Amino acid sequence: MQSYTQLESIFSRIYRLNHLLSLAGWDAQVNMPPKGAEARGEAMSELERYTHELLTSPVTKDLLEKAKLAPKMSPMESANLREMRRLFESESLLPEEFVQRKSKLTTKAQVVWQESREKNSFQTYLPVLKELVATAREEGKYRSSTTNMSVYEALLDVFEPGMNLKTLDAVFADVKSWLPSLLKQVVEKQEKMNEANPIVPITTPISKEKQEALGKHMMGIWQFDLEAGRLDSSAHPFTGMTKEDTRITTNYNPTDVEQSLYAVIHETGHAKYEQNCGPREMITQPICNARSLGLHESQSLFAEMQVGRSAAFSAFLTPLLKEFYGEQPSFQEENLKRIAQKVKPGFIRVHADEVSYPLHIILRYEIERALIEGTMEAEDVPKVWNAKMKEYLGLDPGDRDDLGCLQDIHWSGGAFGYFPTYTLGSMFAAQLMATIKKELGEEEVRRCIRSGELSPIFAKQKEKIWDVGCTYETEDLMIRATGEKLNPAYFREHLERRYLRGED
Amino acid sequence: MQSYTQLESIFSRIYRLNHLLSLAGWDAQVNMPPKGAEARGEAMSELERYTHELLTSPVTKDLLEKAKLAPKMSPMESANLREMRRLFESESLLPEEFVQRKSKLTTKAQVVWQESREKNSFQTYLPVLKELVATAREEGKYRSSTTNMSVYEALLDVFEPGMNLKTLDAVFADVKSWLPSLLKQVVEKQEKMNEANPIVPITTPISKEKQEALGKHMMGIWQFDLEAGRLDSSAHPFTGMTKEDTRITTNYNPTDVEQSLYAVIHETGHAKYEQNCGPREMITQPICNARSLGLHESQSLFAEMQVGRSAAFSAFLTPLLKEFYGEQPSFQEENLKRIAQKVKPGFIRVHADEVSYPLHIILRYEIERALIEGTMEAEDVPKVWNAKMKEYLGLDPGDRDDLGCLQDIHWSGGAFGYFPTYTLGSMFAAQLMATIKKELGEEEVRRCIRSGELSPIFAKQKEKIWDVGCTYETEDLMIRATGEKLNPAYFREHLERRYLRGED
Ligand SMILES: [Zn+2]
Ligand SMILES: [Zn+2]
Repeated sequence: MQSYTQLESIFSRIYRLNHLLSLAGWDAQVNMPPKGAEARGEAMSELERYTHELLTSPVTKDLLEKAKLAPKMSPMESANLREMRRLFESESLLPEEFVQRKSKLTTKAQVVWQESREKNSFQTYLPVLKELVATAREEGKYRSSTTNMSVYEALLDVFEPGMNLKTLDAVFADVKSWLPSLLKQVVEKQEKMNEANPIVPITTPISKEKQEALGKHMMGIWQFDLEAGRLDSSAHPFTGMTKEDTRITTNYNPTDVEQSLYAVIHETGHAKYEQNCGPREMITQPICNARSLGLHESQSLFAEMQVGRSAAFSAFLTPLLKEFYGEQPSFQEENLKRIAQKVKPGFIRVHADEVSYPLHIILRYEIERALIEGTMEAEDVPKVWNAKMKEYLGLDPGDRDDLGCLQDIHWSGGAFGYFPTYTLGSMFAAQLMATIKKELGEEEVRRCIRSGELSPIFAKQKEKIWDVGCTYETEDLMIRATGEKLNPAYFREHLERRYLRGED
Repeated sequence: MQSYTQLESIFSRIYRLNHLLSLAGWDAQVNMPPKGAEARGEAMSELERYTHELLTSPVTKDLLEKAKLAPKMSPMESANLREMRRLFESESLLPEEFVQRKSKLTTKAQVVWQESREKNSFQTYLPVLKELVATAREEGKYRSSTTNMSVYEALLDVFEPGMNLKTLDAVFADVKSWLPSLLKQVVEKQEKMNEANPIVPITTPISKEKQEALGKHMMGIWQFDLEAGRLDSSAHPFTGMTKEDTRITTNYNPTDVEQSLYAVIHETGHAKYEQNCGPREMITQPICNARSLGLHESQSLFAEMQVGRSAAFSAFLTPLLKEFYGEQPSFQEENLKRIAQKVKPGFIRVHADEVSYPLHIILRYEIERALIEGTMEAEDVPKVWNAKMKEYLGLDPGDRDDLGCLQDIHWSGGAFGYFPTYTLGSMFAAQLMATIKKELGEEEVRRCIRSGELSPIFAKQKEKIWDVGCTYETEDLMIRATGEKLNPAYFREHLERRYLRGED
């Protein structure tokens, strides 16, 4: 047992130091003046070097070996030890030299990417993309070397531990078989409705202060404790900092109040998971980490899509908008629901509605996997991208690669295998909501949302997802939470009910 | 030379890590929600433990020994090595056990102090004050053990390296011999004037946004680069973060615009020193640290008192106030000068004008020195405090210890020997301005200030103080900058000219 206790103390130290790295990352996006960036980068790598040392030291390795033999661990402790080992291995697999080379490359790549996107020049980006792909292949080889995973699978495993390509392929094949035609039907249905009865857009500009006030009120509805976190603004909304002080951001556009509002709800979903993940008395331990990125996204999409864009929520929102922003002709329940549920395929992933979104993801998944597996080369990305956009979403970016393959930062940050987690999140969320409706009763769930009294729903999330932390691996967690493995049928049913049958 | 280069790299790492500690400290005062405090404290002590280890390790010690023998160092490198050694020794002198005991005590003491001040209960504070005094005596013994300094001198040396008690006593004796009667004269003079012609106070409330806009404009006048720093608000104004990203704060009171404005000017003075201290190419090295707290304060008081409250500055400020805040009857040059130069002895140090301020300091100096030297005991503090207040400032707090000996946080933070640096700062600032006036010509200095074109003045500060960093020790620096050692006659002359003769 002594070796386990020593490990707890090492991971506790790492958690404490990560607090400062998280703060530095949050501040860089929220407050930092431009000329502070270089010194910030130096400071963060200095501390990262040290936490890396702590995590991968021979001492840690030795303790992990010894702890295997420790008698009588509680199930929590065993799970915690499993996660310690996972973190140790994930961080130890890559040679020092490779980590530094990758870090230099991604720093450079993000600058080149930004420039290339601004200039709409794939040719400018191509050399660095080639390097990124080669480096990701190399990383995948290191990561898969001690397992029976394929190279791409090993990259995916960093973001979505426990997910395998067989499952992912089956799920995505299922989605591809019905989603493009469903999307078409929904678009046609909404177009017909709009002809007869156009949506009244929200047009009167609303000040940042008023939007922020409603945002904070909304965080209150989600029972976010503002004494243990903050709401700020940044170029891209995100959730950051740490469990004891969780900070979300949104951004404000005076003539698009929907954007800041749903960003707040989405990020609050992430924040609730972050704040509540795992047993509180083990807060510094890996067992309290988020189970996976897909599960993290499921909690934000549960808040935004399952709750926030439902018909019941529009009923709750209508008087609130009037109260916070004053009367506007668009502030009518049915009209607000149509705004929240508007489906319109577009070029840009981050602006996509929940029906189109998975098609953006599958496109990226197919391309990045082919790049890693060497069945496609970097120069072909624009051509393949545009062909798939046409096939899945009926749109062609033409020579506007800035609206096509240059739109995302992920590959430039070295993140291959990240994209699938967004859609796993959508599907987890739909499956979780189906279970909660079964357990609480659909009528009760609707009543909670209409009244903004979300406690019974949170209690279910808490019991099934938050409290559990990393106690179980993802598949096991899903079975315990919903009675079955990940099943895309729930997501399909959710989309059909909401967008075709108008029942949600 | 190799050992010196290795030391540079160790101190560079410490500088990088201190960036994160500074950010954590800044954020704690500006952004952190209350429930984040505990985790923040844990995170900061974890990293402090590591930087302490780096600084005091046997490796560092050994390299410092070897570097002594290194041939052919430049004067800059020698100075840098001297500062490295000073930091090493200062941090190594205290036993681990003592450092942790002191840290626990001061954490507790600050809570007890806040509570005691709120309740105006010296009795609540007394037990902890006794512990604080005992701990400071112990610290002074450790710190003086390897030197010929007295115990109090060794504590003072932490904040004002190179200052000795003989000098300090002579200077304070000088000030005490003329300041109380000067203060009386000034007060009488101003009272007489006010009877004949009362000051028109600034009464129309001004929004935070407008005050912030003027604050940022003023930072621009001081050539503060807002791309390399920020202005925020916090309970107490301070300058924080780091050289590459220097952040100041103020606070806003709608009916007291003078407060936020002069806080901005004061902190900008600190920030300019921080941003420019020492040779830029050695930015991560100890030679670029501020020379002493007294010198740091001299740069803020130079900005606030020597420039910002001068008659010439009121001429510059008058049209600006009208532009940023709109016309008000009080916005007349002579009236604004009288507001900026108002002298009124009060109980609270932080609200004191520059004439009364040194008397607040001498009082604290005499008490804390007596406590450390054991010629006075903690239970006698209120009695002695009130007697000295009466003697120096003509005021008696009576049983309101919250307006007396409970007003300052310093002792509760374990800082004995800190107070004198405020008044050293006032005197350095006056002496520096006298030199600059001699070199540039008084008329030219006045012209610069009246027009807000401060570049010629900054050029002198840069050459004499900022560029030098820690190249010389303080006394040497003063002689090089002003032609003589610290001489309180300049401060006296400044006060008499401004407050008695009305010439500044
Ligand atoms: Zn998200
Ligand atoms: Zn100051």
